[in-house]
Amino acid sequence: MDCAFLSVGTELLFGQIINMNTVYLSQKLNMLGLNVMYHYTVGDNSKRLKDILEFALKKTDIVITTGGLGPTQDDLTKEIVAEVFDRNLILHEPSFERLENYFEKINREMTENNIKQVYMPEGAVIFNNDIGTAPGFGLEKNDKIIICLPGPPKEMKTMFENYVQPYLQKKSEYTIYSKVLHFFGIGESLLETKLFDLISGQTDPTLATYAKEGEVSLRITSKRRTLIEAEKSVLQMIKEVSQRVGEYVYSYDDEDFIEAVAKKLIKHNLSISLAESCTGGLFTSKLTDIPGISSVFDRSFITYSNESKIKELNVKKSTIETYGAVSRETALEMVQGVKEKTGSRICLAVTGIAGPGGGTEEKPVGLVYIAMMFDSEINCYEYRLKRPDRESIRNYSVLLMLNHINQALNEKGFGSQVSGVGNR
Amino acid sequence: MDCAFLSVGTELLFGQIINMNTVYLSQKLNMLGLNVMYHYTVGDNSKRLKDILEFALKKTDIVITTGGLGPTQDDLTKEIVAEVFDRNLILHEPSFERLENYFEKINREMTENNIKQVYMPEGAVIFNNDIGTAPGFGLEKNDKIIICLPGPPKEMKTMFENYVQPYLQKKSEYTIYSKVLHFFGIGESLLETKLFDLISGQTDPTLATYAKEGEVSLRITSKRRTLIEAEKSVLQMIKEVSQRVGEYVYSYDDEDFIEAVAKKLIKHNLSISLAESCTGGLFTSKLTDIPGISSVFDRSFITYSNESKIKELNVKKSTIETYGAVSRETALEMVQGVKEKTGSRICLAVTGIAGPGGGTEEKPVGLVYIAMMFDSEINCYEYRLKRPDRESIRNYSVLLMLNHINQALNEKGFGSQVSGVGNR
Repeated sequence: MDCAFLSVGTELLFGQIINMNTVYLSQKLNMLGLNVMYHYTVGDNSKRLKDILEFALKKTDIVITTGGLGPTQDDLTKEIVAEVFDRNLILHEPSFERLENYFEKINREMTENNIKQVYMPEGAVIFNNDIGTAPGFGLEKNDKIIICLPGPPKEMKTMFENYVQPYLQKKSEYTIYSKVLHFFGIGESLLETKLFDLISGQTDPTLATYAKEGEVSLRITSKRRTLIEAEKSVLQMIKEVSQRVGEYVYSYDDEDFIEAVAKKLIKHNLSISLAESCTGGLFTSKLTDIPGISSVFDRSFITYSNESKIKELNVKKSTIETYGAVSRETALEMVQGVKEKTGSRICLAVTGIAGPGGGTEEKPVGLVYIAMMFDSEINCYEYRLKRPDRESIRNYSVLLMLNHINQALNEKGFGSQVSGVGNR
Repeated sequence: MDCAFLSVGTELLFGQIINMNTVYLSQKLNMLGLNVMYHYTVGDNSKRLKDILEFALKKTDIVITTGGLGPTQDDLTKEIVAEVFDRNLILHEPSFERLENYFEKINREMTENNIKQVYMPEGAVIFNNDIGTAPGFGLEKNDKIIICLPGPPKEMKTMFENYVQPYLQKKSEYTIYSKVLHFFGIGESLLETKLFDLISGQTDPTLATYAKEGEVSLRITSKRRTLIEAEKSVLQMIKEVSQRVGEYVYSYDDEDFIEAVAKKLIKHNLSISLAESCTGGLFTSKLTDIPGISSVFDRSFITYSNESKIKELNVKKSTIETYGAVSRETALEMVQGVKEKTGSRICLAVTGIAGPGGGTEEKPVGLVYIAMMFDSEINCYEYRLKRPDRESIRNYSVLLMLNHINQALNEKGFGSQVSGVGNR
């Protein structure tokens, strides 16, 4: 079936925000085996919204809208959809109760205009909003389907995964099974070269690579009549891929690098503490985003000033004076300081120049030292990162830290097995 | 004049890349005083491209396309445009010479298919591609204008700035001025209620609210014959808004909360150090994302374990045993520990239960204590956050910390003046 997305919101037309909803939905719908044919964006204006909606419904079987379901006057999507599909809007009691509970829970007064959100088109399938106020819905008429979702990305994604995906899956006679493998340390073009025959000869399963900053992922997808057939086809392909490029895989289960590493730390009860300078707590903040991490994470020192490195981590003043705060020597003393203070089995320290200022010819922006102690084993690594800006230097430094931990875990027998492969 | 963008490229429909061209052009065109009414995206397919192009030309005066001008077979935009405008494609000699020079310069052989790029519609205004191969063009017919630009963002931007902007400026008789205000501590529906008459009676300037997690922003836009008139109209409205809800505004200059606060700290040279427990370094990592923050940020202690609170921050063991790690008493001792160790003028400590586990009836998930010392003044605030998940409890805690700092800065005369208001 062919489908289109219609994003509703004047802020998009101003270029105030990036339309990530469309990126997300495009990926998801393609995964479900639907053909995405058009993206449209329109402002909060009833005439234009109606025009484009009618055009969209002429061109494709399914139209999915995001935005315009909220409580304010310029939230118009539902009203226009009801008009185009010739339905009344009626109070949806269960959603009204959910709305009341929501405001009670967050302890805020519910203003009158909120009630607008729970008037839904007659005959619609209602999708609950598990983390917000505006419910979504699906509506069918003459082989056309319209699905309306809220604009805030978190609400939209939660609703899509919990309710819309199962709803759409029922419309398709095929089942899709897919696995996403994540790689670090190999570029997209090299990965593609190594898997060239598998990718170019793709019928089922299909392989698609996708690069994001410093990482590459590979999606392996099978579309079959039954889930068992599809799963089998994907797992066989994973075995083949794993034999060729398994050394670069950090997750076979579509996990972020931090998630994959944190889970291993928790599973094997390996305590961890850090000292961060140039990354400024970015590693620790990502680590502590993982539920349950408190069983292994002890503490971190974000030591930005020289004095803090000396006082908190016992880095020698002479070391900083002789070699500088960004040096192998300082990184090594930092990590030893963490070890002495915490006794954690894994200790890391990072110091570098994130820019945009602070670089010299000898020590340019992008120079980063990562020191690691795993039990009594100590190592330090130097990087000269050629990244475009402060943010990406910080992000890439965190990936490198994760890679060192992950490699050490693998070497010491704490690595991940290929989930679902070999065990089946 | 009304305009629309049409992005051409199948990769966009797969969600493989983010459509940043549209974000850029939306901002630029709005600034030029043109009304951006629609965004469209379509794949490399001649039938669908023609359909959408005809629809777009019916709806707006100007249509700007990006993509599909290259040398390959699936580059179709120019051919379809010529068909719709009923023009022949003829070799554009100056562009052909530029193309030959380009290949000579990069020392590569020019393959035959490249020549396709310099066949241009009869009567078009040609826009040179200063950094690539495919020229763009503008074409007019019956009061309709179509502008075709290359897809690679750098080429598109360079062409836009050098040639398209001057071309369009001649067509527009209006100028746009807009300001974005950011609020914390007031919901979108309440803000709209307080500004109801201003929003619903909107002609010029217009007001539009936009909500994101825990924050609301308000865009005030004026479109006048001259920039001075438009600016005056916006600034008058800001005064009115400020009188009604100024207490909730943290930025009059479209800044993130962290950016607004960090800039004030840097400007007034106010040193800052922190102790983070439940937020796990999230505050510090955001703070250190701001270039130049090293002049005021000293250090942070991410003290997850009880032992680390005792050892690093001198929290009394008996305090934790009596009141618990998540308590007013512990938060106050934590912040005093930071002060003793660092002497920073602003010290903050946060301890709480981010969940999903760890909550009890007495101390539920979402219980957060924020303690702050500003010089010798010490305060502690208790929150019982009703947020859906760990991530949003952590994020909202950071916003609350920023809010306390911001309020203290305002009280002590380090607050921001309304930029551009009152000063004029």
